[in-house]
Amino acid sequence: MANIQQIARKAGVSVATVSRVLNNANLVTPQTRSKVESAIKELNYEPSMLGRNLRNSESRLMLVLLPSISNPFYNEIINGIQNTAIANNYNILLCETDSKAERENIYLNMIKNKLADGVISMDPTINMEKLNELAENHPVILCSEYEEGGSIPYITTDSELAAYQAVKYLIQLGNEKIALINSDEKFLYARLRRAGYERALKEFNLPIRDQWIYHTKDLEFQDGVQAMRMLLQLEERPQAVFAVSDTLAIGALKALNSGVQAFESIAVVGFDNISFSNMTNPTLTTVSQPMYKMGCLAANMLMSSIKGEKVENIVLDHELIIRESTMG
Amino acid sequence: MANIQQIARKAGVSVATVSRVLNNANLVTPQTRSKVESAIKELNYEPSMLGRNLRNSESRLMLVLLPSISNPFYNEIINGIQNTAIANNYNILLCETDSKAERENIYLNMIKNKLADGVISMDPTINMEKLNELAENHPVILCSEYEEGGSIPYITTDSELAAYQAVKYLIQLGNEKIALINSDEKFLYARLRRAGYERALKEFNLPIRDQWIYHTKDLEFQDGVQAMRMLLQLEERPQAVFAVSDTLAIGALKALNSGVQAFESIAVVGFDNISFSNMTNPTLTTVSQPMYKMGCLAANMLMSSIKGEKVENIVLDHELIIRESTMG
Repeated sequence: MANIQQIARKAGVSVATVSRVLNNANLVTPQTRSKVESAIKELNYEPSMLGRNLRNSESRLMLVLLPSISNPFYNEIINGIQNTAIANNYNILLCETDSKAERENIYLNMIKNKLADGVISMDPTINMEKLNELAENHPVILCSEYEEGGSIPYITTDSELAAYQAVKYLIQLGNEKIALINSDEKFLYARLRRAGYERALKEFNLPIRDQWIYHTKDLEFQDGVQAMRMLLQLEERPQAVFAVSDTLAIGALKALNSGVQAFESIAVVGFDNISFSNMTNPTLTTVSQPMYKMGCLAANMLMSSIKGEKVENIVLDHELIIRESTMG
Repeated sequence: MANIQQIARKAGVSVATVSRVLNNANLVTPQTRSKVESAIKELNYEPSMLGRNLRNSESRLMLVLLPSISNPFYNEIINGIQNTAIANNYNILLCETDSKAERENIYLNMIKNKLADGVISMDPTINMEKLNELAENHPVILCSEYEEGGSIPYITTDSELAAYQAVKYLIQLGNEKIALINSDEKFLYARLRRAGYERALKEFNLPIRDQWIYHTKDLEFQDGVQAMRMLLQLEERPQAVFAVSDTLAIGALKALNSGVQAFESIAVVGFDNISFSNMTNPTLTTVSQPMYKMGCLAANMLMSSIKGEKVENIVLDHELIIRESTMG
């Protein structure tokens, strides 16, 4: 098989130029690139990137860990990570952990094994002990979910404040009995959003009742349907519902729509502003986080960390998007 | 740094056993695994998987190309691929091409560069010339989208037949003016679904009108909203709509819901049975393909191809799921 020297000779360029073409660097003119590509094709050359990476000791790959791609919350973040990575000559590998420890291990081992240069974790179920151990010697960034008081750099929004503001808005609309559809409180975001919910209720001297706080197993639409059905069966029915994710809130709207009675007056607020949230009937009032920007900045943080630079934590702003589901 | 021999000595096992632990093989008892992991930790050993792969010349990685993870159609297929891959000691890398040729190139080069063992492409915009060239020397499987008369093995469903049956169902409900919301007919599935739509109309001697065939730029919800708004403005309004994806159909339902008049009598059929299609109001009648199974089988096909076995094409069955959007 041809080697890189033969390609360079054939194309009439330097070995460094061939290498730049192979690395998809932007410093090569289209004409030169085309000459090199013709030579590669003619000589049937297949560079071993494994061999090359072994010398460079860099893979130009970032791992992105997420529990499941079926939650659309991650879409825009991933777009931001991906666009930023590719603009900087990195590729990203999406790793769905399905919240299973053995999958997390496989992916974290890829970093230890130098198959990827660093990892952005968005997985709230990640084993923090293992991740902290990895972070001692490898670049790791936490995105969205983070560890309170931990040492791994993170980018996030203020979940407690966002939840507080969402519930306060429901109170200002005249609601006094407000339910919370929460996920498992082993997750930090779930604990923070509950804290914000309780802070708003306490501030207005409104009751916090266990029966109005429903914990779902998962974040699927169906979990929201089930939660709302339970809440509707209570003798003292809530007047409004704050759900900690749009998928849960959309499920709740579905349960309201298909109830035997019409429950149109029950206000619902979600969290995430996923693209579906504007397609429901009624459209969903929700908390919007700058997800695309979060992804871009997470990728920048990881690249800084790979270069050995110090990386600061970032807390981004959120906003409440008011739509039909809180307009009675 | 410690080498694999030192780990084996420390743990009191063979080098082959250490290797099995590093490869996450299932043949090791928990006790042995724990001994090896302690030795690895104690000696601070970090195996270079790059070095190992160079010797094995296999990466145990599959690439999965898809245009965008934001179309939920791909979720279940990916789950099937991922579960099958992991059960066979492979990992998958999700590669979003965003339908951009330069990204496709980067990912296809990863195969040429032996960073991954093979690729499953679900990208309808993929450059088939380049993919065919790659397939001459590397394992490639087409999933969902395929090339008519091409040589790359594929797994798909019969889009023409499914569209024919969906439109025939609309006709049997008494509709005579039936619109098609299609995507770009540069895609095979779009051409096939149009062919099925036309076959049904011809069979019942119903008119095929250009003004009732709307082409969207993309498959986002908003494209469906826009398409339906255009159709509602026609002097001769259609009585029913067949959309080639659920995202488009859900956008169409949204436009019907938010029209100045109520257009509740316009029936809508989608395609894909995404999880959200059951959350809309009304719920969406749609064509369901066995997506999880398609993903599992695609992974099996790729693994067979990696082993050098001959792989046959597979066409899976679909079904029409009848819900509220066609119940008037």
